[in-house]
This record gives sequence, structure tokens and C-alpha cells, in this order.
Amino acid sequence: MFAEPSPKTRELLERLNRFFDQHIYPNEARYHHEMDAFRRQGNAWQVSPLVEELKPVARAAGLWNMFLPHPHRDVPAISNLDYAPLCEVMGRVSWSGEVFNCSAPDTGNMETIERYGTEAQKDEWLAPLLAGEIRSGFLMTEPAVASSDATNIQCTIRREGDEYVINGRKWFSSGAGSPRCKIFIVMGKTDPDAPRHAQQSMVLVPRDTKGITVLRHLSVFGYDDAPHGHMEVLLEDVRVPASNILLGEGRGFEIAQGRLGPGRIHHCMRSIGAAERALELMCDRLRSRVAFGRPLAEQSIWHERIAESRCLIDQARLLTLNAAYKMDTVGNKEARAEIAMIKVVAPNMSCKVVDWAIQAHGAAGVSQDFWLAEAYAHQRTVRIVDGPDEVHRNAIAKLELAKRAGPARA
Amino acid sequence: MFAEPSPKTRELLERLNRFFDQHIYPNEARYHHEMDAFRRQGNAWQVSPLVEELKPVARAAGLWNMFLPHPHRDVPAISNLDYAPLCEVMGRVSWSGEVFNCSAPDTGNMETIERYGTEAQKDEWLAPLLAGEIRSGFLMTEPAVASSDATNIQCTIRREGDEYVINGRKWFSSGAGSPRCKIFIVMGKTDPDAPRHAQQSMVLVPRDTKGITVLRHLSVFGYDDAPHGHMEVLLEDVRVPASNILLGEGRGFEIAQGRLGPGRIHHCMRSIGAAERALELMCDRLRSRVAFGRPLAEQSIWHERIAESRCLIDQARLLTLNAAYKMDTVGNKEARAEIAMIKVVAPNMSCKVVDWAIQAHGAAGVSQDFWLAEAYAHQRTVRIVDGPDEVHRNAIAKLELAKRAGPARA
Amino acid sequence: MFAEPSPKTRELLERLNRFFDQHIYPNEARYHHEMDAFRRQGNAWQVSPLVEELKPVARAAGLWNMFLPHPHRDVPAISNLDYAPLCEVMGRVSWSGEVFNCSAPDTGNMETIERYGTEAQKDEWLAPLLAGEIRSGFLMTEPAVASSDATNIQCTIRREGDEYVINGRKWFSSGAGSPRCKIFIVMGKTDPDAPRHAQQSMVLVPRDTKGITVLRHLSVFGYDDAPHGHMEVLLEDVRVPASNILLGEGRGFEIAQGRLGPGRIHHCMRSIGAAERALELMCDRLRSRVAFGRPLAEQSIWHERIAESRCLIDQARLLTLNAAYKMDTVGNKEARAEIAMIKVVAPNMSCKVVDWAIQAHGAAGVSQDFWLAEAYAHQRTVRIVDGPDEVHRNAIAKLELAKRAGPARA
Amino acid sequence: MFAEPSPKTRELLERLNRFFDQHIYPNEARYHHEMDAFRRQGNAWQVSPLVEELKPVARAAGLWNMFLPHPHRDVPAISNLDYAPLCEVMGRVSWSGEVFNCSAPDTGNMETIERYGTEAQKDEWLAPLLAGEIRSGFLMTEPAVASSDATNIQCTIRREGDEYVINGRKWFSSGAGSPRCKIFIVMGKTDPDAPRHAQQSMVLVPRDTKGITVLRHLSVFGYDDAPHGHMEVLLEDVRVPASNILLGEGRGFEIAQGRLGPGRIHHCMRSIGAAERALELMCDRLRSRVAFGRPLAEQSIWHERIAESRCLIDQARLLTLNAAYKMDTVGNKEARAEIAMIKVVAPNMSCKVVDWAIQAHGAAGVSQDFWLAEAYAHQRTVRIVDGPDEVHRNAIAKLELAKRAGPARA
Repeated sequence: MFAEPSPKTRELLERLNRFFDQHIYPNEARYHHEMDAFRRQGNAWQVSPLVEELKPVARAAGLWNMFLPHPHRDVPAISNLDYAPLCEVMGRVSWSGEVFNCSAPDTGNMETIERYGTEAQKDEWLAPLLAGEIRSGFLMTEPAVASSDATNIQCTIRREGDEYVINGRKWFSSGAGSPRCKIFIVMGKTDPDAPRHAQQSMVLVPRDTKGITVLRHLSVFGYDDAPHGHMEVLLEDVRVPASNILLGEGRGFEIAQGRLGPGRIHHCMRSIGAAERALELMCDRLRSRVAFGRPLAEQSIWHERIAESRCLIDQARLLTLNAAYKMDTVGNKEARAEIAMIKVVAPNMSCKVVDWAIQAHGAAGVSQDFWLAEAYAHQRTVRIVDGPDEVHRNAIAKLELAKRAGPARA
Repeated sequence: MFAEPSPKTRELLERLNRFFDQHIYPNEARYHHEMDAFRRQGNAWQVSPLVEELKPVARAAGLWNMFLPHPHRDVPAISNLDYAPLCEVMGRVSWSGEVFNCSAPDTGNMETIERYGTEAQKDEWLAPLLAGEIRSGFLMTEPAVASSDATNIQCTIRREGDEYVINGRKWFSSGAGSPRCKIFIVMGKTDPDAPRHAQQSMVLVPRDTKGITVLRHLSVFGYDDAPHGHMEVLLEDVRVPASNILLGEGRGFEIAQGRLGPGRIHHCMRSIGAAERALELMCDRLRSRVAFGRPLAEQSIWHERIAESRCLIDQARLLTLNAAYKMDTVGNKEARAEIAMIKVVAPNMSCKVVDWAIQAHGAAGVSQDFWLAEAYAHQRTVRIVDGPDEVHRNAIAKLELAKRAGPARA
Repeated sequence: MFAEPSPKTRELLERLNRFFDQHIYPNEARYHHEMDAFRRQGNAWQVSPLVEELKPVARAAGLWNMFLPHPHRDVPAISNLDYAPLCEVMGRVSWSGEVFNCSAPDTGNMETIERYGTEAQKDEWLAPLLAGEIRSGFLMTEPAVASSDATNIQCTIRREGDEYVINGRKWFSSGAGSPRCKIFIVMGKTDPDAPRHAQQSMVLVPRDTKGITVLRHLSVFGYDDAPHGHMEVLLEDVRVPASNILLGEGRGFEIAQGRLGPGRIHHCMRSIGAAERALELMCDRLRSRVAFGRPLAEQSIWHERIAESRCLIDQARLLTLNAAYKMDTVGNKEARAEIAMIKVVAPNMSCKVVDWAIQAHGAAGVSQDFWLAEAYAHQRTVRIVDGPDEVHRNAIAKLELAKRAGPARA
Repeated sequence: MFAEPSPKTRELLERLNRFFDQHIYPNEARYHHEMDAFRRQGNAWQVSPLVEELKPVARAAGLWNMFLPHPHRDVPAISNLDYAPLCEVMGRVSWSGEVFNCSAPDTGNMETIERYGTEAQKDEWLAPLLAGEIRSGFLMTEPAVASSDATNIQCTIRREGDEYVINGRKWFSSGAGSPRCKIFIVMGKTDPDAPRHAQQSMVLVPRDTKGITVLRHLSVFGYDDAPHGHMEVLLEDVRVPASNILLGEGRGFEIAQGRLGPGRIHHCMRSIGAAERALELMCDRLRSRVAFGRPLAEQSIWHERIAESRCLIDQARLLTLNAAYKMDTVGNKEARAEIAMIKVVAPNMSCKVVDWAIQAHGAAGVSQDFWLAEAYAHQRTVRIVDGPDEVHRNAIAKLELAKRAGPARA
């Protein structure tokens, strides 16, 4: 069968869509009102009452921790191909993932601990994360260097006795804004003189360790994305037990590579969900507005954009599902070209579709009355985080050129 | 399984690729030399000796008439999904299809007769076409009107006793240039007062019927595409027996719709094959040239284009295979959005990739020394024939807007 | 001389650039800190202390009210061509225009009153506006309809005795957020049954008139643009003396047309200034960052974008100056194609250049640390306000097609 | 005055337009028929009877040798800014330039000899060229290397006694196909060990010198561009007197730089003329065709393209005129960024506009019945010749980055 969801996914999908119809879409305004009230009170970094209220409902509906690629204790595994369509739905409402304990960076952090952590690390951090009791942050990007090149990383993780001492400045540390964030995964260098990809390590750093200062949030086109947030974090002589290392010294790059694959499927499918919703909004708006005597929906310029949107969305979805399938069948490493491709294709596509939807809405499109401007800001950012387009295109091109290696033919 | 060829297709594909390696690629220069010699002699409209030579070889290799969607006598059927990858290979060399009796417009004409013809019509015309003994033309487009709107057609098919009398002027009549072309399928109006889509009919018109004049060939960006050709044909009081009608009066539009689906899969997969080859040539050229001290293949501007090409090609292929799968499973009518989408996506994509490949080749890219300029001319034309992009985007958009029907939501 | 500023403009330009170097650029951080402090205090709609501090300095430097196209009392006139380069400089810092009493919508409102107002209206409103003592708002766009078609406007202006009674809902009412905004120009319909372009009128409505409620601000990609603001304003039985009408009943469309020309030159030149600054930031960033062993500034993909930026900026500037020159020499009406063209070209260009600059900055580009995300949000919005791209392209095309009128040639 | 032609140019322009109306447009079909007849006779490389017939008419009308930037004997000079609009007109009909003795590569070759030649060289070659008695070729590009990097050139010019001995293979040698071509300017290396830009020299090589073989023509998207032609030329031990060198050994790069500026203005203005004509054809076609009940000219998708075309054309023209003005006022070297910019902008623009015009014409657009496919082939090639886009963008970017030199600011 071609590009169709498995029966299991189809069932989950139906359940998830029902949940969205009952609990997510009707509460979108409430979510923003609650967060705006926090902002007006001077502190946006508070737990969303709505999300907390919905978590047990989602759990009761069997929509909890659906993302795990390998089974862990009582949490069953799901393949990338099966999970992808669920991500697409969650991409329609940016805050919805947490309701199902399926939001970044927690999903990636949980996968990382599940895959590379010791049993003790799992007991301490994975268990409460899977229970939705705590949240986590991922500290990789640094303000001072082009972090897309991992050898540029300046944060140091120095062994001192049975401790690691961490010094560095991180930013765009997603998730670090939440008051319930209790654990950071920090990428730094244990050995700057090691070979290029063996210099980096990852350590588990409890959020309340001495020496950690969350300095401020970084805004994204004017949005603070609270309470999740993109934070700037200063680490000054932060000490953690040596046992907090993940996998071992010099394995940080390897973990990063392993962790990024599934995360990219998630990101991309969410981008596709966002684009799909934007296209719906675009069609609805165009059907509802009349200018110069005709509904906008009858203008051929909008036919072009609707059709292009449909073509772009469907292609990006097929490409992402194909990458998921390849990861499931031959592994993340063999699928690295496919993963790089979707990382470029999906957010570029969604930026374009959301931008057209904005244009179709006129001034309303850039305002808070529609979800579109916020979606654009987010999708535009996805073209940068986890490596900018240019880095991925470079990787794709090198794999392509390598296929033609051997004596060049003029 | 996702997007992977069936074992049957895989075997055919291997056989076809071997045939290309042995008989097609090594003969590309010979093909052009032979046709150029004919041109210099003043008549390009001659049968290609090379193609005739290779036909029995292909037949012996079991690579003959692979395209038929329904079984006919001893010719087995193939699904659209299974045939698509074979078309992709044939798209790499424009003249290769005829070697396997799989070239347009013969494939479409054979399908049409197989699907809508009487047994007598099949005996007379389908049999020699399947045997590769004769070739055929398809006369639909007219110079005087926008033919993408079938109601514009001006050619008349008038019943007179037990004959039809045909008058009209057609152009871009593909296949009509070949000296072995013996049968035309002609689209015209039997009843201009009937409902919009019941005015048109199709009739079988033997090439040598009185009143037919093949006036000239139309060039495509300077290429004559001989001996196949795109001809202008005048039909003056052309009389054929009433039994030559296909399916019945007023059924022409219906046949056109039925015939176009598979033909579009073929066109699109050939476009994908052309793009794939252009990307290979691009990589090879860039690897072989040095400017300002570095191989062009190390320039990041070319990395962008190579990566974009790979992303665009893979997406277009998945979209086309998905359309083929949908046609196979739910029928051409249900798959009309998918068919319209690939008709827009595939040739636009291949134009872009071939154009980049031309740029990578410098002046050589526009010359006869590489296949690229010819490929561009052909791919650019595909964006117009069988309905220009605008008509298909319009159709896609209307289907998309219809999904949102019901009270419009602002 | 071609495309070079007049000696007068050159002198003003030098003075203005000096002022920016001394007083504007060094205070950009302070401006944002002050406004952010207001936001944290719960009310962003306060007068900027910095801007107030700089106004007398600008006035003393002879940089005050430079924009007026016709002389008014002691304020000298300036041609569109001469004023344009000054706008370009002001486009580099979004809040700078007010320092020179040259910010929208005040400039447009002042021009409108100067051009179409009575002496009494000038005494009451133009004088304090030119003195910088009060500010103004412009209420045209409505949330319920496609306002780009002026016949859609629903706000009613009903004559009752010697008063007008105004009812309507406006939004994206620029300038209405300022606590010093004292006067609105309101567009509404005095006669919905009049010919298409004689239905609308404009009236002067003091901000503190009974029945006016400023409901809320509209955000633009998450920015509130305080204290200027884009407000939603409810007008319920708002009564003003009949003498507050501008030019006369049914002249609203005519005023809108007359007012828009110069305003568009200003908008477009500011867009060009923004793009020019973004290109500088892009170059600086690329020169300062190293990835995979080479400065980003040596990557040919960035050469492409820098070169494209330069080509796009210079072309948009020439086109805008050409439109200014045409307005100055043959009038706004004769220059309507040129004005429509720059309205499409300039913000599209600046969106593209700013977006590339964002990409060059990585995550920093979307954050508050650089002016880029804010600039993007603003430039993107310019593609919608004062008529979306589509409306202007439509107007340009109709003028172009009209040039070819007469018997169509096939 | 801004962007308006001088009175002198206006007068010449009127005369030239009148000439086109009387002698060029009415003869376009005849030109093609005559050349096609030659092709059918087996030799397209013959002098056009039409062009020969029109030359004395043009001369009598005072439209002869209008291009010369410096006066030479009785030929007056014209500035780049004044000549540019004339080039635009000539760009509307590809073969028209020769009628006025204003066609490439003769104009560039004449300029080169005028500027860098000795009096003896001028007597021998410039005089008959200015008289239109002979034609010339320019041999620079080579098939074996990326010729955009002049250091790649492999053709050798070896001093031997009082002769130079030339060996090399050139292609895309424009003008070398004409039977009246009597003189080549050949670029080669006199000293491969000299500094990068002092290795190259240019020599005058009479076409009938022993050792010269014109091997074949290179086609451009299927067009032979006869009788002008793009030829492949073999030079084997070709001997010319040492006095045939231009300017001196090692000065070839310098001459190339000097010669290219005006040539690019010509190319670009011709591209603009081609685009302008394509836009006219597009409008005419759209006004004449009806599909699905409405003239194509009423479809908003075509409004977009018409408007974009107008915006792109006007911008490219202003940019080119600005470059011409700058060359006239500060010299070719100071204007090198402007020259590089137009070389990128103009043909890219014209490719886009011509391509839209093709799409508007349906299948007719790619055929010989309209001038469009030929125009596209030519404009596409201009993006490659005289340096591909990438080389010019690179140069522009380096100049832009250099403006920001000094300590990089993050």
C-alpha cells in the first residue's frame, strides 16, 4: 500500500482528531487569554492551567506518550511512519503537543535518555518526564558562534575528580522557560583537541544546580512563546556528578545525530499540519470576502496559490513519510539524505503557504485575531533551528555529488 | 511498503536499464547523426534506421508493449504504479520510447482504441499498432482557439448518410509527421448545440483519406522533433464511414478525460527521468570544471541547486507514484486532483532542474553538444500541451475550495 | 543629471545622516528599553521620553517638517523627488520619523488638511500638528469587509441638521494608540446610493468626541508598535459639526487618491532604507562568522544573495525616484501606474532582503537582539496596508492592457 | 531631468522607430523565409538579401554607425546614455542591428580597434567595418575550460621572430559564420607565467589566414542563428605579423574589461527591448483569446504577470540607463558594479517576461509562428555569454562586502 496510514495509526488518528474537536480547537482562545493575563500580570512564565486540565483527559483517552520509537517499561513503541500523521495533527495548534506529553524538546530529551541513558538516569529523569510531572530543556546553541558547526561550540565540560565543571553561555534553549523544567541536557566540549566529532559530550544538568542563571527569553518575531520559551542561560562553574554524562565522553556529536532524526520527522510533520490548516483558513477567507464585485475565491490568482499550496503540501508530506519509512527500515544513518531533505522542504513550504494565507486575510492576517502570523513566525524559525537550510542543502549536495564520484565525465 | 517498486517492476526495470546501457545510450550520437543527415538531404520526415534496428532487439528482450493498462489478447496489462518507473527511464532519451513501442501518442491512441473501440476497429488499427507496423496521430489542438477549453473546438464532424464529413484545422498534431503514420484520432464537434461536454466526438480517420493535407511542421524552440513531429493538418470535407466513430456521438470529451490520466503519468515520469539525468549531468560537469581556483562542485551556490534539484525530483516522483497508485485503486475520476497536480508539478520541476544544468554547463549547455537544451525545449512545452498549467491549477483549486464548502467561516 | 539628489537635498541628507549618527543610532537600545519598561508596567501606550527629548534637537538642527509638498505659512515645500532620500534614511530606524515630525499617519493627515482643509480647519488642527504638539489618526480600514475596495466601506456618516453622525467600526487605525493623538480623519459613506466613487466622505473627528471607543490594539507578528499602535476603534453615534467635513460630501475617494501618492513615496523610500540597512547587517554578520572552516562571507550562496539584494534595492530606489519625479512633473494622477508599481515593488523587495539578512544571522535574526525580525514584520505588513499587492497589480495590468486597446491582434 | 532621453536621442529614436515601422517589422516574415530557403538549399551561411537591401536605406536615413562612444574621423560619438534607447528598439528584432551597422560583435570589435588600435590597424580594418563592407568575429570562449575565468584560457600566442603563432580551439565565436567575416580578434596567452591578468593578449587575425578552420556552428536551443552564427574555430599554427597585436603583449585582459562595458549596455538594452515587445505580444494575445467564458485578459493571474512584467522591465531599464550614465560620467572602471548588475538583471528579467508571454500564447508560443521561442533562446543564452550570472553576482557581492570592511561588527 502506498502512503496510507496503518490501521493502528488510523485508529489513533481518529481518536486524536476527535480530541482536537472536543478539547483543543474550542479552547484556543482560552489558552491565549490565560497566557495574556499572565503577561499583563508581569510574568508569562507560568504553567498553562488549560494544558494541565487537559493532560489527564488526554491520558484517559489513551493519547499519552505516543512518540517513543523504542518501547520503555510500560510505554509501547511506535514507528516513525506511524507517529508522523499524529504529529501533523498536533502541528495545527502549537501548544497542543504538551497535552499529550508529546512536545519538544521533551520528546527528544526523553528519547535521548531512553536510548543513551543508564538505568539510574532513566529512573531519575525519564520516569517523571514520561509521567508529565516535570519538563526539560536542551542547551546546545550558543550566541557567540555559528552553532550549526558543532566544532564551534565553546561551552566547556571539564572533568574534575568525580565531577564535571561546566562553563558556557547558551541561548535559544527551548523549554528552559517553564517553571516545571527540572532537567537540562547540555552539549559542551570535554576535549577540544580530540578529532572533530569526538570533542563534544552531553551531560544531564539539574535545573536547580548552583551556577545556572536563566538570563532572559529570546523573542521570535515579537512572540515570547511562553511558558515554553527560548531562553538565554549562563552556566558558571556548574558542577554535576561524573555519572551524569550521557553515553560517555566524546559521544555528544553521535547522540546529537541519533536524536535529530526522529525530531525532524516531528518538526516537519507539524510544519505540514500548520500548512494544511493555513490552506483551510485561506480557502475559508477567500470564500467569505468580496472585492470589486466578485468573491476573492473566484480570482485566478488565488486559484494559483491554492493549487500550489496543495501541490507543495502533498509533496512535502510524501517526502516526510518516505523519510520516516526509510528511518524505520534502514536506520537514521542510511536515511540521512532523506532527513536533511525534509528539514529543508517542510518549513520552506509551510512558510510559503502560511504567507499566502496571511495575504488572503489582509491586515487581519498579521494580527492576533488569526493564528497565521504566529504560525509564520514559528515556521520561519524552523528554517534556522537544528541547522539552517544552507547546512542541510550542503549535506544533500555532497551526498549527491558523491554518487557521481569516479573519473568526472565532461 | 512505501514508494518501492513491485518485484515485477524491479525485474523489468533492471532489464530496461541493461537495454539502455547496451543499446540506447551508446547510440544517442548515431541517432542524431542519422536524423541530421536526413535534414541536410532536405527531408527529415523519415523513419529512423536506428530505431527500426532496435525494435526487434527490444521485442526479443521482452521489452515491448509494456504500457497497456488492460490486457488485450496476448498483451498483458500493467498497473500505472508498475509502469511508471519504466517511463522514468524512457524519459532519459527522448526517442527511446518507440524502440519499445511505448511512445506517445501511440500509447494513448492504443489505449483509447482498446478501451473505447469496437472489435472491428481493434482488428483494423490496434493490431498493427501493437505490432509496431504503423504509427498514429492525435488531432485535437487547433490554432484558432484556446483549445484547453474543449468547448472552443471548431472542427466539425457532420453526419451525412452513413458517413461523417470532417472539416477543420488542427495543429501540434503529434506523430502526424512520421511516414509510417496511418491513422488519426480526430476530435471535433458533432453537435455544437449539445450540453457543454456532449458536443464533442472522436473519429478514426485513416491518414490517406482524401481531403487531408499535412501542411507543415511546427517547431519547438527551433527543434523539428522529426520524424515524430508536431504538424499542422488541414481537413477539408474528409469523409469516413459512420462506423469510425469511437464510443458514440457526443462521447469525445468523456474519452479525452479517460485517455488523459495514464498519459499524464507517462509524461510526468518521463519529465522526472529527464530531470534525474539533467542532475547527473550537472554534477558531472561541476565536478569537472575549475574556475577562480576551485572546482565548481565546491561552490555553495551549486550545492543549493543540487540539493534543491534532489528535493524537487524526489517530491515530484512520490507525487506521481501516488497519483498512479490512486488511479489504480480508485480510478481516474477519483484521482483527478492528483492527476492535475502532477501535470503541473512534474514539468515545472524538470524545467527548473534542466535549466540549472544548462547554467552549470555554460555555453555548452544551450548547444547541440549536450542533450540539455533539447530537453528544456521539450519540458517547457509539456507545461502547455494537454492543458496549460493555469487550467490544471484552476481545477485543483476548485476541488480544494469545494472541500471547504458549506457556510464560509471568516 | 540622472538619479542624483539636488544640492539642497544633498545638504539636508548630510545633516540628517549626521543627526542619525549623533542622536538616533546611539539611542536605539534606549528607545526599546524605555518602551519595554512601559510594557512591564502594564501600559505601553505612553509618549516616548527619548523622542520628546530629541524633537527640539531636531528642530534646532533645521530638521523639522521637511515633508510638506506645498508651502504652508512659514513651512517651506519640498518636492517628492527631494524628500525621498530623506525618507530612505528615516526608514532605517522605525521610530525616527516622529523626531522630525515626519511620521505617518501625521504627514499624510497634515498634507490632507493642508490640501483639502478650510482655513479654520488648518488653524485648529494643522497648526498644532506642524508644531508637534498633538498627533493624529487615520480611520479607513474596517474589520468586516475587504477595505481595498472603497465601495465596501460600511461606516456611515449621516447628516443630521448641522451635524454629522458617524457609526462604524475601524481597525488598523494607525496612530490612534498615542496618548497625544487628538484628531482622527474618518472615512465613511455619506451616500451609499451615489456612484461608486462618490459615496465616500472624510470628516475630522476630535479624538475625545463622545461615542468613540478605542477598543484594543492589533498586533503585527507579535509586535504592538506602541505607542503609535494599530487600533480597533468603535464609533457609535459620534457627532461632529457639519463644518468638519473635508472638501465636501462625496469627495472622500478623491481625497484618498490625492493623499496616497506622496504617502506611498514615503513608505517605499522607508522600505528601501530598511532594506539597505538589512544588507549592511547581512554583510557584517557574514564577515564575522566562520562555519566549517571558512567565513560565511566567502560562500557563493551568500554572494548570490548579497548581489541580488544590491540589484533589487538599486532598482526599487530608481523606480521610486522615478515615480517621485513623475508626480512632481505631471501630477499624481498621471503618475498612478508608477505609484502602483512602487507600492508593489518596494515592500516585496525589502521583505526579501530582510529575510535573507535574518537567515544570515541564524537564530539571532528572529530575536529582539537585532532589528531584523521587527523590520520584517513591518515590511510584510506594508504589502497589505494601503491596498494589498493584488489590487495594485490589477491596476497596473489594466493600464497596460489599455495601452494595447483597439482591435486585438492575434 | 530624470531618466528621460536627451533631445538628440529623442529625435534619433523617432527616426529609428519610423524606420522600424516602414522597413523592419513589415519585413520580418521575409527575413525568415529567405534564411529558411537558404537552409533548405543546404547552406544557411549566406548574406541576407533583405539586410543588404536595407543598409543603404538606413544610411540615407542617417541611421548608420550610431554606436561609437568616441568620434572617429567623420563618425560622430554618442554617449552610452544616449545610445541606450536606440539599442532597446533594435532589441525588438534580432537581425535589425546589422541594418544600421550596429550589430555585435562588430560594434565591440570596432570600438576595440578605435580605442586600442594603431592608425594602420584602423585604416586596414576599422574603415571597411565602419563602411559595412566586411564583418568581424570575436574569438575568446574555449570549449575545454570555464572561460569566465580568463586565466583558464589555453589558446597560445607565441612570438616567433616578427610573427605571432597562434594555436587554440575557440567556440561560440560570434559572427564567424558570415561569409563576409574578414577579421577575427583573438584572445590568447602570450605569457602563461605572467601575473594573473597580464598573461593574455589580443591579436588581429585575418579570417583567411592559413591554419584557420571554422569547424561547425553551435546551435542555441535548436537555432543556428545564421548567417551570424556561433562557430567552433580551430587555430593551428596560425601566423600573423607581430604588428597585429592590440595595445601590446599582456594587455588582453585590460582590453576585454574596457570593451565589455559598452557592449553590456547594448546587450541589456536589447534585452529590455525584447521584453517590452514580449509584453506587448502577451497583452495582445490575452485580449484576443477566450476560455471558459472569459477573455484571458480578465484573469487576475495574468494581471499579476503583466504587472510584474511592467515593474521588472521599468526597473531594469532604469538600472541600465543609470549604469550608462555612470559610465559616461565616471568611467567604465568606476561603474563596474553597475555594469555587473545590469548584466545579471536584464537577461534574467527578459527570460522571465518572454517565458510568461510564451505561456500566454499556448503551444503557438514555442513555435516558429511567433518570435517568442527564438527570443527566449537568445535571452537565455545572454545569461551565460560574457560571463555567467554567477561570476557577475560574485563580483557585485565582493564590492558590497568591501564597503563594510574594517573590523566586522557582530
